[in-house]
Amino acid sequence: MVVRVLRLGHRSERDRRITTHVCLVARAFGADEVVVSGENAGEAVSSVEKIVLKWGGDFSVKFDKNWRKILLGAKKKKHLIVHLTMYGERVQDVVSAVRASKDVLVVVGAEKVPREVYELADYNVSVTSQPHSEVAALAVFLHEFFEGKELEKKFEGAKLKLIPSSRGKKFSE
Amino acid sequence: MVVRVLRLGHRSERDRRITTHVCLVARAFGADEVVVSGENAGEAVSSVEKIVLKWGGDFSVKFDKNWRKILLGAKKKKHLIVHLTMYGERVQDVVSAVRASKDVLVVVGAEKVPREVYELADYNVSVTSQPHSEVAALAVFLHEFFEGKELEKKFEGAKLKLIPSSRGKKFSE
Repeated sequence: MVVRVLRLGHRSERDRRITTHVCLVARAFGADEVVVSGENAGEAVSSVEKIVLKWGGDFSVKFDKNWRKILLGAKKKKHLIVHLTMYGERVQDVVSAVRASKDVLVVVGAEKVPREVYELADYNVSVTSQPHSEVAALAVFLHEFFEGKELEKKFEGAKLKLIPSSRGKKFSE
Repeated sequence: MVVRVLRLGHRSERDRRITTHVCLVARAFGADEVVVSGENAGEAVSSVEKIVLKWGGDFSVKFDKNWRKILLGAKKKKHLIVHLTMYGERVQDVVSAVRASKDVLVVVGAEKVPREVYELADYNVSVTSQPHSEVAALAVFLHEFFEGKELEKKFEGAKLKLIPSSRGKKFSE
């Protein structure tokens, strides 16, 4: 099973931090790869690469301007395309159907998402039908998709590892 | 039961969008109130107020520079203080204990959180022990805390309401 995330419509200045959060959430909540599309995302990509080097795990992040090619490629490989949007069907109603698919491409937009994305998606899915955050929508979607098991994920080859602690900050080798 | 969120250490320029996302997530995932602390958060507060007017629900957002007073006030009223931090105990291990409390103050920090917050918190809680996003941590924490029931929440008095849809954008009156 491969779970990829496509971050659409990145704007260099305005979205730098939000896009970084999207990428880090993809990694922390069990996705295998994130692709950032839109304007140049060099800064976001390299800060995520640094996190991967330090905190481990097999996660790749890249920039690709051509989101349409990625969506069409996913369709061709019969990967399920799930577009997260507040307008979509409720996650609690469709997540088990989505889970039945082997490989999934989860699409999260920025401000404006082209009509074509809604059409190409196998599922348009909402996490609450309220305006909030693509970062939160992605996290809760992946959490539901993996049924909470992603919280137990091990990140191999980490230089830095935390030991959960009630008060302090504890690290292990 | 009252669930409040305290956003710590807001920086006017740098955190404007992230803080807005934190506030909107607090609202969408069932909290009653968010308090933003740190530097002036006027812009974030007013954009959240606009969302509340349009999308309904009984949710308040305010700015208060004095986070210590809020934490000590919560302690005095015997509200449980839950500080979300990647260093904390795992959410999957402690959420049922947290749920037993009537009133909860959930604290989410920005870059640097003062030592005192870790000490004043009844629980320091991590959502994965990986670096990602306070927006995502808050969403998944509230989702776990409310056991997914927050996804069914109705927002009374909304001027705008969505009807979940597999393709288009559907609104109701």
